[in-house]
Amino acid sequence: MKRTEFSQIFADIAAFDGREVTVCGWVRTSRNSKNFGFLELNDGSYFKNAQIVIEQGVLANYDEIAKLNVGSAVCVTGTLVATPQAKQPFEIKAATVEVEGASTPDYPLQKKRHSLEFLREIAHLRPRTNTYSAVFRVRSAAAAAIHEFFQKDGFVYVNTPLITGSDCEGAGEMFRVTTLDLENPPRNEKGEVDYTQDFFGKSANLTVSGQLNAECYALAFSKVYTFGPTFRAENSNTARHAAEFWMIEPEIAFADLADDMDLAQRMIKYVIRSVMERCPEDLKFFNEFVDKGLLERLRFLVDSDFGQVSYTEAVRLLEEHKDEFEYPVYWGCDLQSEHERYLTEKIFQKPVFVTDYPKEIKAFYMRLNDDGKTVAATDLLVPGVGELIGGSQREERYDVLVSRMRECGLNEADYHWYLDLRKYGGAKHAGFGLGFERLIMYITGMGNIRDVIPFPRTVKNAEF
Amino acid sequence: MKRTEFSQIFADIAAFDGREVTVCGWVRTSRNSKNFGFLELNDGSYFKNAQIVIEQGVLANYDEIAKLNVGSAVCVTGTLVATPQAKQPFEIKAATVEVEGASTPDYPLQKKRHSLEFLREIAHLRPRTNTYSAVFRVRSAAAAAIHEFFQKDGFVYVNTPLITGSDCEGAGEMFRVTTLDLENPPRNEKGEVDYTQDFFGKSANLTVSGQLNAECYALAFSKVYTFGPTFRAENSNTARHAAEFWMIEPEIAFADLADDMDLAQRMIKYVIRSVMERCPEDLKFFNEFVDKGLLERLRFLVDSDFGQVSYTEAVRLLEEHKDEFEYPVYWGCDLQSEHERYLTEKIFQKPVFVTDYPKEIKAFYMRLNDDGKTVAATDLLVPGVGELIGGSQREERYDVLVSRMRECGLNEADYHWYLDLRKYGGAKHAGFGLGFERLIMYITGMGNIRDVIPFPRTVKNAEF
Repeated sequence: MKRTEFSQIFADIAAFDGREVTVCGWVRTSRNSKNFGFLELNDGSYFKNAQIVIEQGVLANYDEIAKLNVGSAVCVTGTLVATPQAKQPFEIKAATVEVEGASTPDYPLQKKRHSLEFLREIAHLRPRTNTYSAVFRVRSAAAAAIHEFFQKDGFVYVNTPLITGSDCEGAGEMFRVTTLDLENPPRNEKGEVDYTQDFFGKSANLTVSGQLNAECYALAFSKVYTFGPTFRAENSNTARHAAEFWMIEPEIAFADLADDMDLAQRMIKYVIRSVMERCPEDLKFFNEFVDKGLLERLRFLVDSDFGQVSYTEAVRLLEEHKDEFEYPVYWGCDLQSEHERYLTEKIFQKPVFVTDYPKEIKAFYMRLNDDGKTVAATDLLVPGVGELIGGSQREERYDVLVSRMRECGLNEADYHWYLDLRKYGGAKHAGFGLGFERLIMYITGMGNIRDVIPFPRTVKNAEF
Repeated sequence: MKRTEFSQIFADIAAFDGREVTVCGWVRTSRNSKNFGFLELNDGSYFKNAQIVIEQGVLANYDEIAKLNVGSAVCVTGTLVATPQAKQPFEIKAATVEVEGASTPDYPLQKKRHSLEFLREIAHLRPRTNTYSAVFRVRSAAAAAIHEFFQKDGFVYVNTPLITGSDCEGAGEMFRVTTLDLENPPRNEKGEVDYTQDFFGKSANLTVSGQLNAECYALAFSKVYTFGPTFRAENSNTARHAAEFWMIEPEIAFADLADDMDLAQRMIKYVIRSVMERCPEDLKFFNEFVDKGLLERLRFLVDSDFGQVSYTEAVRLLEEHKDEFEYPVYWGCDLQSEHERYLTEKIFQKPVFVTDYPKEIKAFYMRLNDDGKTVAATDLLVPGVGELIGGSQREERYDVLVSRMRECGLNEADYHWYLDLRKYGGAKHAGFGLGFERLIMYITGMGNIRDVIPFPRTVKNAEF
């Protein structure tokens, strides 16, 4: 049996007109009388359903097919007829319908609107709904576009390790990874848990970022990127936090903050443009049912020249509107979401890079500016979301880096290899991090991170 | 400064002949006299070095440049001159050389042959050597080809979860993921460690496979694939085991074992062909210095029709040569590496799928054949390596699956969602798993998994 996928048919209906096809999929709806009926099928390859016409006189098993419950899997062979005048662009007149797997009347996805909360409880079935089917096709298309962008541009993809003996940012709450028996762990002579007997011979955690490892590779290949999972054991039960999520972290050598921002702008536009081309029906659905301004916002982003403003200037601009904020704004403060959105939505009315933040609110590895107070960091703020990307030029000067590490209370010995990069042919380099789920939320308009991850892991939740 | 990468130049030397270029990279060797010298630079974008000509009369900082240690990072602007008669195809006559970052005389990568064991200890610097530079460019090209293959064919990329509350295969040694304080974990009234107080509200581990989750998505999108990390806490210190490695797991609905093997064959040929096209210099190097028969083996694989033999027939064939094996071979035995290699290298002399293994030696989810003794499983064996891919048609029949789970001592309640897939529109489906590192070892001829992972995690080792 050579199966045709809906995506192939919808791409060129005329080519299939009058031809026999075999399609397979799941019944979304079924309407029928004694002699005649319709099945709406979906096979997941495309947003839209195909209409199957079933007839008593044609199908030996008509009665069985007409009684099929929603959710059943069938394979249909029949003649495709284009119906340009009708609501659906074609129908398939079934010559045979084979039941691959029946469903039951208690199938949880009956034809009615279900709440996203309910659907999260059946994460194994929710990709069969319009909303999640579209979300995860978009997620796949965006991932493909990211690889495409970097590969075309000569970047080397690096898989940085997930299990780590070190805490990258000197901060961040981490998950422990262990094979010790928690009921009765081995102990050393001081009575402490003896991690030398653990799998890795020492205490190990799940990484919060691949950046420091990626820097090693940038200083060998010039241009590299990671695209893999990262973890945060933060006890935050919000719509924007997950314990496990995917990050994209490019790192470029012989490059400064301006090169970094240029890369970020080109990448984000490429990915969004690519998803708009590949998933028009999915985005149309989001625009209609999830976020009315979505398509306009995306089109605006790919067409606009991103703005740029220093943190110092941004704070000055925000101070002019200080009465409008819940949180105080002043030089030295960490910008709150309300500040970020005000900057991009009200003041600049377009995506904007904020640069050169006070060193106190940024990580130790960011390059110290000549003023001694700020670092060459940048956050990309976009309307409707706020921060989408965070990046920086890295401190390539050995002595400056060591003194920043001391200021931050880090142990140099733990970072001997990271410091080596500044001793042996160090080079100006920069990079950024993009949270993949945050990008998918931005592209789809979905408001909760739990709805853009197939099986989300959050506080008190690791089901499926 | 607009930098040109070596990969661009080597792709079309004639186009750059006589033009001014700026290149950046790391000094691999330096030879010079008082007035005149050569630097060999490499920027990681290509296997080969570029030769830079430096002259006392031209460079104000000639003395500094001539004294640079190996490993230094420099940016050179100068005129490119094609030298088709010389050993190197072009040279760049430097007008300026800027030192980005000096190196020191104790730089560990001096121009001499280093052992792979030594280089593993400096995993942060080893990508700057010929061997590892080639390995990780090939790894990146192979990853890109995998995404390209599946995306072109309409597959949806799914990120299955890494942290899991369940043990997929009912076997496999797993890492625990926890935020409990190991020194003093909370305990319940029975005195046991109280995992309800752990981050996820229950005991959690790192996944050994995304397959069961991927099946949920295959039964919504028809064709899906995963490409992500998996983990094994096996205490095996061999050249083929790592605690953290990447897997590719496609899963297809409305498909049987034959479709699965067809997909595996198409995929593996696509990826290898693609790497041969993109990384010819890297493969040439491996063929010359790592594995003399490499290119011949790869060419043979992409051109051959893979064979197919049932396990039962394979055992019969092997029994004819039983004196040649260390381990006994008999119906019911798990084939050893020596058996697998004998089959593919001596008997079939090409890649071969072995199918329909005894159910006792395979996982519970594999589809029971009509003989009641074997399951619709397949392993792809390839010359020089043995098993490269393992796959199966999945058991789609609810009752058969439940009875297999009972036989295997699994708790049905833990798999309620997996069983649901057989209740609500189940369909014939199949899939396979390909260990990404094993593939890279096959393509490069590298013999140790530690040499194809940027920062490998193995027993007692989680450095960097």
